Amino acid sequence: MLNSIPSLARLTVELGRFPGVGRKTAARLAFHVLQQSEVEAQALVAAITDVKAKVGYCSCCFHVTEQDPCPLCQSVDRDDTLLCVVEQPQDLMAIERGHSYRGRYHVLHGVLSPLDGVGPDDLKFDALIERVQQGTFAEIIVATNFSIEGEATALYLSRILQPLSVKVTRLAHGIPMGSDLEYVDEATVGRAIEARRDI
Amino acid sequence: MLNSIPSLARLTVELGRFPGVGRKTAARLAFHVLQQSEVEAQALVAAITDVKAKVGYCSCCFHVTEQDPCPLCQSVDRDDTLLCVVEQPQDLMAIERGHSYRGRYHVLHGVLSPLDGVGPDDLKFDALIERVQQGTFAEIIVATNFSIEGEATALYLSRILQPLSVKVTRLAHGIPMGSDLEYVDEATVGRAIEARRDI
Repeated sequence: MLNSIPSLARLTVELGRFPGVGRKTAARLAFHVLQQSEVEAQALVAAITDVKAKVGYCSCCFHVTEQDPCPLCQSVDRDDTLLCVVEQPQDLMAIERGHSYRGRYHVLHGVLSPLDGVGPDDLKFDALIERVQQGTFAEIIVATNFSIEGEATALYLSRILQPLSVKVTRLAHGIPMGSDLEYVDEATVGRAIEARRDI
Repeated sequence: MLNSIPSLARLTVELGRFPGVGRKTAARLAFHVLQQSEVEAQALVAAITDVKAKVGYCSCCFHVTEQDPCPLCQSVDRDDTLLCVVEQPQDLMAIERGHSYRGRYHVLHGVLSPLDGVGPDDLKFDALIERVQQGTFAEIIVATNFSIEGEATALYLSRILQPLSVKVTRLAHGIPMGSDLEYVDEATVGRAIEARRDI
């Protein structure tokens, strides 16, 4: 039925490329654009164009940024002895929202995944080694996700960082804040018992 | 955290205007745009611009269209004695996908909703009356949704169409195709029993 309105069909296809957006949702979003005012649609177009034109990657930590180096790398308030390694810019933002880390960051832009053809050369490992070799960092916190690929990447990183005589750590496992023990999965409860601490 | 990247923050706000897209989803979509290739982003921008430039409403039935009158109104294959009244262009498309209706359409662009300040003058009622007065239609099928507003609009339509001596009908209630009786709600089963038919 959309075939009789080619431009709407094309917008549906383009919106269908968004993650988690299926054919029906894409059609709903396309109709929303159609029913938006001219001003709103122009604002959306301008925002997309702007992001593509202005946002790039920091040449130091590879976070997304509009200026290079990024504000996090430029800041003089942050601890130069701590480096947190994350998979994606979104992970960095999640840690920043936690407000308890004040060190530097390094974004890998992915994880090792031989099945998808992602090897060490496809990630920002060389730049990481180079930064660690400069010797200011005392501890590297590997904050890759706890997926199989994330864990493997963490293991790989600990191996290649060991010769550089820095401490390599990983985020703690445990009970999420505010959880009911009854509903937490067994593996997490097990890890939380093992990692119990004095109060 | 997005505040340090104003253009990405702005895109997140714009994408957050889409129906069913919350703050977190909007951020995910914004990152998707950021990580798209230049060509893909350009295609998305062109599709949005195109829809706003090319798609308008048919002056006869008020369906969305790139040409006026729309292909459905122009078609000579359709039954000129039947008129189906729907709330939105999406509803028209849903009926077309059913492949069992071959008459004409009229899109109201909304339903009567006094609480939202939508009265008869805000909908395409006048144009509907005018079309019906021309006298070609023998039956008007009111296919507004089965919400309170949709039912009220159907009742209102049946009142204003009655003096024009046309038959006014409503879509049938019943068990959806392929359903398990066990899982169909009571009201629907009740209606399906009442409207039972010979086999």
